[in-house]
Amino acid sequence: MAPDFNDHCWNDVIDDEIREIYEAYHRETYVGARPAILAIDLYNKAYLGGNRPVREVNREYAGSCGENAWRAVEPTQRLLAAARAAGIPVIYSTRHADTAGVASTNRRKNSETEDLYAIKDEVAPLPGELVIYKERASVFFGTPLIAHLHRLGVESLILLGESTSGCVRATTVDAYSYGFHNTLVEECTYDRSMLSHKVNLFDLHHKYADVMHADDVIAHLAKLTRKVA
Amino acid sequence: MAPDFNDHCWNDVIDDEIREIYEAYHRETYVGARPAILAIDLYNKAYLGGNRPVREVNREYAGSCGENAWRAVEPTQRLLAAARAAGIPVIYSTRHADTAGVASTNRRKNSETEDLYAIKDEVAPLPGELVIYKERASVFFGTPLIAHLHRLGVESLILLGESTSGCVRATTVDAYSYGFHNTLVEECTYDRSMLSHKVNLFDLHHKYADVMHADDVIAHLAKLTRKVA
Amino acid sequence: MAPDFNDHCWNDVIDDEIREIYEAYHRETYVGARPAILAIDLYNKAYLGGNRPVREVNREYAGSCGENAWRAVEPTQRLLAAARAAGIPVIYSTRHADTAGVASTNRRKNSETEDLYAIKDEVAPLPGELVIYKERASVFFGTPLIAHLHRLGVESLILLGESTSGCVRATTVDAYSYGFHNTLVEECTYDRSMLSHKVNLFDLHHKYADVMHADDVIAHLAKLTRKVA
Amino acid sequence: MAPDFNDHCWNDVIDDEIREIYEAYHRETYVGARPAILAIDLYNKAYLGGNRPVREVNREYAGSCGENAWRAVEPTQRLLAAARAAGIPVIYSTRHADTAGVASTNRRKNSETEDLYAIKDEVAPLPGELVIYKERASVFFGTPLIAHLHRLGVESLILLGESTSGCVRATTVDAYSYGFHNTLVEECTYDRSMLSHKVNLFDLHHKYADVMHADDVIAHLAKLTRKVA
Repeated sequence: MAPDFNDHCWNDVIDDEIREIYEAYHRETYVGARPAILAIDLYNKAYLGGNRPVREVNREYAGSCGENAWRAVEPTQRLLAAARAAGIPVIYSTRHADTAGVASTNRRKNSETEDLYAIKDEVAPLPGELVIYKERASVFFGTPLIAHLHRLGVESLILLGESTSGCVRATTVDAYSYGFHNTLVEECTYDRSMLSHKVNLFDLHHKYADVMHADDVIAHLAKLTRKVA
Repeated sequence: MAPDFNDHCWNDVIDDEIREIYEAYHRETYVGARPAILAIDLYNKAYLGGNRPVREVNREYAGSCGENAWRAVEPTQRLLAAARAAGIPVIYSTRHADTAGVASTNRRKNSETEDLYAIKDEVAPLPGELVIYKERASVFFGTPLIAHLHRLGVESLILLGESTSGCVRATTVDAYSYGFHNTLVEECTYDRSMLSHKVNLFDLHHKYADVMHADDVIAHLAKLTRKVA
Repeated sequence: MAPDFNDHCWNDVIDDEIREIYEAYHRETYVGARPAILAIDLYNKAYLGGNRPVREVNREYAGSCGENAWRAVEPTQRLLAAARAAGIPVIYSTRHADTAGVASTNRRKNSETEDLYAIKDEVAPLPGELVIYKERASVFFGTPLIAHLHRLGVESLILLGESTSGCVRATTVDAYSYGFHNTLVEECTYDRSMLSHKVNLFDLHHKYADVMHADDVIAHLAKLTRKVA
Repeated sequence: MAPDFNDHCWNDVIDDEIREIYEAYHRETYVGARPAILAIDLYNKAYLGGNRPVREVNREYAGSCGENAWRAVEPTQRLLAAARAAGIPVIYSTRHADTAGVASTNRRKNSETEDLYAIKDEVAPLPGELVIYKERASVFFGTPLIAHLHRLGVESLILLGESTSGCVRATTVDAYSYGFHNTLVEECTYDRSMLSHKVNLFDLHHKYADVMHADDVIAHLAKLTRKVA
């Protein structure tokens, strides 16, 4: 039994009753065999308005995750570097601006330009890394992701990105349904609402994924690198 | 713009900041055209231990939703009666006890008997109503549900059942991805954790479904019945 | 019982024994309600080398369907015109030249340019018509097609294009599995091998689709147009 | 380049033109890594009427494959034994008699009993072997097969069963789309129409699967057994 199974950001919103009810989910968490990184929706739109509170940036840039997005840049850069050093595939998702009326949620949007959905430079794909274009929340739905995972020999996933309560959650549930072991990197995952962020991470951690701290995942990848070297 | 878009059970956990950030999701809610009822996992196991607090029943019957399940019985009976009177298809989901190692979540379980997953008598299917057996959280995943919906000419869904943060959420997200308009019936949907229940309903209402009160859905179905008659 | 259920191009390769064995599939054929056209892979590559026998064009342009493709241009133009006049959605599929190692079949290919997979001018989409990009044979697999069909209110499909034994067959089988009634337009569908063309049409006609002659489908669409007008 | 790529049962229906056109598909064939056997629809109904010509048994038992099914029993028994000796998972598919109007093809059927769809004794699953129940042609469609393959660590498939032009073809195309390497065992696969059998094997062999002779697959499995031992 893991003594610190709930040593995560949601600790302050989960009371003793919930803790007791969810005890049957406790288990060791880990990064699975033959993993790939799945970096979800790290596109420019999420960072618009800069490193400021969501409520402030939202007034001008609806859809921005503000400081929640910016806080994740540095650990995400370290994680991506560690994955590449270990020779682990890095796969991105994003979308096209025009998807002919099929959208990922019910949010109202004005017409948009394609550059909003380019991956942010600081965490951008290297040449040759796969980018999956999607129209719904899950990176699996309506995309060839599953075929690429098989082609690459991937058996488990390390997920990160935005938003926790939207595309990250939908993708993680699908990944679990397909049969992948999932690790979700807490500090590299973000949302616009901190309450939805925490409760969704709690749900995912218990039911479908091992939420782990970025430093622990990076340390694991460093061990893989030493084996490869 | 709906003035009371958040007049729901989650009102007490959502603060002004979140309310403002999610304003772009506000819209009229409604029951879609040519609907079917999708009654998710109304099986005996969820009611074990009786109409008592979840924490109490959980000690003897892990997985029971206790009083949260029992509270939903009466509105669910009224909703099912209204749907049948209106000639709307009623579809159930459940599972088999033995699914050869493929489970809907990471919860530990002892071996179980098939009767745990029979639909509870009070809300049971009528002869001829479809029951979908699933192994993952979503009723769409790994089942022929989509084929049956097309065969029946269904264009939108009215969802209810348990658990809000598990099978109901996964099913509703998939239904949105497939392109169905979704209505989620608040009083007929339940969870073991009230916090997860509220935050998941909030997420679903804004992004993927119209959460409506049972009385409003029943009133709509009654209007359909009068048209049919 | 349709007396001329096998009055189609495969008549000369099907003997009396097969005819008798497949009698249980005979039925009336028709165009379904609320149809959409699904025009599969009408891209430039299929027409390379011109209106000549496949064997000849194949030596220079592997993958071309030669005269089989060219013969279908005129009826396809008439069919598309009839569908547009009737206000029926026209959906195309094609692919990108670079699909990162995930291919629609095991055929060896050299590196290719994107213009090979542009839809041929003579049968090209009008502005606003949907084009689905796929990486596997079926237009449903790994694409958001099903979501778009629901958004458009489509209940049945009219399929055409290439190749009968590849993408057309895979798409039609998937369409049947999803629950759509399928009409396959004989003169607008083609392959590189006439034997595979005929036997695949025979299989599809009996098991998964109503193979109909272009003139009959066009006549049906003309009736719909008069209703709309 | 394999000199005998077309040394298979379809040789007598494929002429030189087709042979030349399909040259770009030639490649080495093999059994992939970490395989599972997928035994498709080896149920009693296919053997009804005994080891006699299809045309004869069809008059009393529509749907029976007659002598084509019976001829495959012996090699299938040897293949299953070889797979079990090598510790390779054996997965079966079948269906329930009542599937509420969702069928695998357009064939007319009378009402049926469940025992028609029990796997035939001679080739039946051992206790603990997985049986997938399906309603459409492909064993992947509307079933949890993909989750079980991941749980079992399966990376490639060895397919067999019936019918070549129905469930075997649909399943093999889906398996290719998902990204599995497929081996199809010629002598363990059968159909009611020999022409459809041959042309579908030809199509599958070139596009989606490596059709191999039973003896070659069994020899490969025997080598795996010696490694394990």
